[in-house]
Amino acid sequence: MKLTCTQSDLSSNLSLVSRAVPSRPNHPVLANVLLTADVENQCLELTGFDLGLGIRSSFSAVVETGGTFTLPAKLFNDIVSRLPDGNITIDDDEGEAIATLTSTSGRYQVRGMGGEEYPELPSVEGGDVVSLPPEALINGLKGTLFATSPDETKQVLTGVHLKVQPDGLVFAATDGHRLAIVETESVAPEGEEETEVRAIRESPVQEITEFEATIPAKALREVERMIGMGKSGSSVTLRFDEGQVIFELGEQRLTSRKLEGQYPAYQQLLPSKFTNQINVDRKQFLGAVERIAVLADQKNNILKCTIDSVNQEISLSVDAQDVGSGRESMAAQISSDEPEEIAFNVKYLIEGLKAIPSASEISIQLNTPTTPVVLNPLGGLKMTYLIMPVQLRG
Amino acid sequence: MKLTCTQSDLSSNLSLVSRAVPSRPNHPVLANVLLTADVENQCLELTGFDLGLGIRSSFSAVVETGGTFTLPAKLFNDIVSRLPDGNITIDDDEGEAIATLTSTSGRYQVRGMGGEEYPELPSVEGGDVVSLPPEALINGLKGTLFATSPDETKQVLTGVHLKVQPDGLVFAATDGHRLAIVETESVAPEGEEETEVRAIRESPVQEITEFEATIPAKALREVERMIGMGKSGSSVTLRFDEGQVIFELGEQRLTSRKLEGQYPAYQQLLPSKFTNQINVDRKQFLGAVERIAVLADQKNNILKCTIDSVNQEISLSVDAQDVGSGRESMAAQISSDEPEEIAFNVKYLIEGLKAIPSASEISIQLNTPTTPVVLNPLGGLKMTYLIMPVQLRG
Repeated sequence: MKLTCTQSDLSSNLSLVSRAVPSRPNHPVLANVLLTADVENQCLELTGFDLGLGIRSSFSAVVETGGTFTLPAKLFNDIVSRLPDGNITIDDDEGEAIATLTSTSGRYQVRGMGGEEYPELPSVEGGDVVSLPPEALINGLKGTLFATSPDETKQVLTGVHLKVQPDGLVFAATDGHRLAIVETESVAPEGEEETEVRAIRESPVQEITEFEATIPAKALREVERMIGMGKSGSSVTLRFDEGQVIFELGEQRLTSRKLEGQYPAYQQLLPSKFTNQINVDRKQFLGAVERIAVLADQKNNILKCTIDSVNQEISLSVDAQDVGSGRESMAAQISSDEPEEIAFNVKYLIEGLKAIPSASEISIQLNTPTTPVVLNPLGGLKMTYLIMPVQLRG
Repeated sequence: MKLTCTQSDLSSNLSLVSRAVPSRPNHPVLANVLLTADVENQCLELTGFDLGLGIRSSFSAVVETGGTFTLPAKLFNDIVSRLPDGNITIDDDEGEAIATLTSTSGRYQVRGMGGEEYPELPSVEGGDVVSLPPEALINGLKGTLFATSPDETKQVLTGVHLKVQPDGLVFAATDGHRLAIVETESVAPEGEEETEVRAIRESPVQEITEFEATIPAKALREVERMIGMGKSGSSVTLRFDEGQVIFELGEQRLTSRKLEGQYPAYQQLLPSKFTNQINVDRKQFLGAVERIAVLADQKNNILKCTIDSVNQEISLSVDAQDVGSGRESMAAQISSDEPEEIAFNVKYLIEGLKAIPSASEISIQLNTPTTPVVLNPLGGLKMTYLIMPVQLRG
């Protein structure tokens, strides 16, 4: 293997794929990045893989001799990121298990391992395929990822559930305490007549079918990063099969295992009707909740919301004995005089309100102080956020 | 105590003085911030104090009733920083040990303690006084603070030694492995005829005398922050007495105990002459050292420097067996052919080279591979950085 590429290409792609390299690998070669030099296409492909999550990225390079090799991800990245602008030559001195990096400033030799020891990245062939605009994916992820469970024992709840329907995608996440749902509609982007969210079964060509998958939050956070860094606005392709999902963004590819197991039938949790709807300014409401949270944090994180339909005003309050108390009021459109009081965990409120930054106003729909409450942005993102109120004693 | 001030004034001053509030206070009242409302001067003064370091700041407020009170620093700061722009009224409801904060958005009651329980901040009267421009102080601190010892048992070495002389200040710091010295000259700023570094003994008026003090790095890092935040370019006044030093910056004041004990006679460590001087581009040299450090970090942090006076070139190299090796070369002006090789701890080199960002070129003066080496910027800051080379075996 012998090739020349630019420092900036190598460094940016290396730091990207390094995110899939495990910090505590089960096998030594997994601490490495796989380099594949392709003479035919004159490109270098880099791969990081922790057996669950894999990131692969390729970019153009002048390849003199093709081949594969692996290098310790952290060390390789630390050196390359500090090298000056300009060309870098990588030569694996065949059979020596050492790669020589030559840059304008100097020469480094780094011990590696043969590419044949590196595990194969899973591929998906003939599965379900969806193509969608990056913004739709970003909206879906931003609106749901925060509601996944960080507790590894919660299995499917550590991921986002994705349902592909003919007319769009539904993202959902719940940790058992709250539920976030985002629906992205299939919108034809400017200058294109076709709808951008396309769900097709590749071969044989069939009618669009519904299918679903639960994808680990860890992998989706990387997808979010990759889209955020991406310069191109071209669409993202998702490929699914029994056990894997692959996201393709231009020359970058992320593979992840799917989470096994039945995802909760979350639609059943949403009340079919509400007796009261409160419309309130999102920013003002969030600001008040964040201030009340400072005192609620000293006690049990519970905030009390008093609903005054006569004066069309809601008040948020907290009483942390021995520490202090606080109360804030703000105007709201309130449709009914029931309930008069309801309590929430401040953390769940804050996270939900932050996940809908585009909305200037939100609606809060509720029935009683002990039944599920649903928040929706008024306009913008099609998001539903369900939280359970906290029952107040006495 | 009853007063009204703006949220922005209260929040910025509160976060400043909170930096002197200990996270684990010896006495409950030290977890609080002292508020002193002054009717006569129509200002509010805030104080944070951990018995060693104290920060006091005052700003204008509409004071209806004067008095003192203390409030939990973290809670108070967390609430105030989240309040919306506009006026805040603070009322301590005399005798209730509770303060009421009223803002445009709501009302908070926070439990506090009487101001009389708060310890007195040390004052310095009739001691030595120095006035100097903020830039001189910043230069002195940036060039020395990094070389102080983080090890609390090292006593005076955990501080910066300050020597006040008629024509300027000398800052010095050493952790036993390296020594950094910065001399700030007394330069008359534009538009002023007087020299800006003034050392006077206040009363009775005497000739300018020399005096010195060792000040804890922790306090000086706060001084650095305060100057960095400061909008005014007005001079900083330092007052010294037996045990304390006070920095006055406009309406802000930082007091610190001095470190007791004799500071090492560091001037004796500087070689009086050198057999070789190497001039090299600082940025290029630092870049190479940082890259070599990636591999040196895998072993013993030692970098080898080969000096080639014939080709007027130095090479930096590292050989970390089992991991890899590296070598970088660069042009240098070299005055002698001795020594041919010398080794350094990369950490000490990097920190020293980073502390002189203004210099484009530096000189490295040396005698033998085992005697002290001195780095100086060529032009700009008057700084001296001494490091001991590492002896190579074999």
